[in-house]
Amino acid sequence: MTLIPEGDNRERLVCPDCGFINYVNPKIVVGSVVTWHDRVLLCRRAIDPRRGFWTLPAGYLELNESAAEGARREAQEEARAEIAIDGLLAVYSIPRISQVQLIYRAHLDRPDFAAGPESLEVALFAWNDIPWDDLAFPSVRWALDHFREAGTTQDFAARGNPGEPQGL
Amino acid sequence: MTLIPEGDNRERLVCPDCGFINYVNPKIVVGSVVTWHDRVLLCRRAIDPRRGFWTLPAGYLELNESAAEGARREAQEEARAEIAIDGLLAVYSIPRISQVQLIYRAHLDRPDFAAGPESLEVALFAWNDIPWDDLAFPSVRWALDHFREAGTTQDFAARGNPGEPQGL
Repeated sequence: MTLIPEGDNRERLVCPDCGFINYVNPKIVVGSVVTWHDRVLLCRRAIDPRRGFWTLPAGYLELNESAAEGARREAQEEARAEIAIDGLLAVYSIPRISQVQLIYRAHLDRPDFAAGPESLEVALFAWNDIPWDDLAFPSVRWALDHFREAGTTQDFAARGNPGEPQGL
Repeated sequence: MTLIPEGDNRERLVCPDCGFINYVNPKIVVGSVVTWHDRVLLCRRAIDPRRGFWTLPAGYLELNESAAEGARREAQEEARAEIAIDGLLAVYSIPRISQVQLIYRAHLDRPDFAAGPESLEVALFAWNDIPWDDLAFPSVRWALDHFREAGTTQDFAARGNPGEPQGL
């Protein structure tokens, strides 16, 4: 049943028998803009949603994992790549789907990568060759634009949603 | 029952009758280092854990909320303060308790605040008057130190856990 637990101010799903409160929380996505020299690593999705479209190596943070560990794991799982993280690029909030994305700047020390089970292919793209019309999600475009901007200005303050500084 | 769902690689709690998979995810804490001129706003906790100790206005991000909205809501709930967010200060990962903390830099436009229901008192502290020995959590100290460092250096790249750049 749905009710507002004592001391709370929002409705939660509560079991009337045992009192278990099912707090449903926003989810954390961790990912990276990964480069090898001046090229960017992208993965073509083998799974829905947006199968066949290009994305950053990214996915849900797991329990007992730091955000950076999660970003490294996702690069290993989706692109079979060992990445070195350089800093936090951006925090994007997608409140409609209760998601917060932490996107890092990272690089490869060697151009070793391959498609993991969730990728059809993985490739390095020069900026002008990025498949802009075939990106999987708006936030992939945001992250690539913010990555380029940070590299140009050397201003590494974390970005928020475009047009909404700090995700306001 | 606990099993690894098809296409997954970790054990999850699954209902053997309906197939519902209870994905338990890390939680997001949002908070702020809030200043009024050169003083910092702190709240003395009225609730456990660490009742009676001083903390930043911070708490769990709710569904359908951006990270910055959540940080503003927590400042309103705990310190009855309207804050203006200036940027992201730090991302701390506490993998032991599956928590990621997003801490913003923020300020008050007017010194209006009061104790909300989860605070015994709320006060502004000059740096040297901060009750360093009575802070509620290690990450409160981290955030205050990082805030001071960012203000001194004007380097606003997001900080990670101390001694672990970018939470590596």
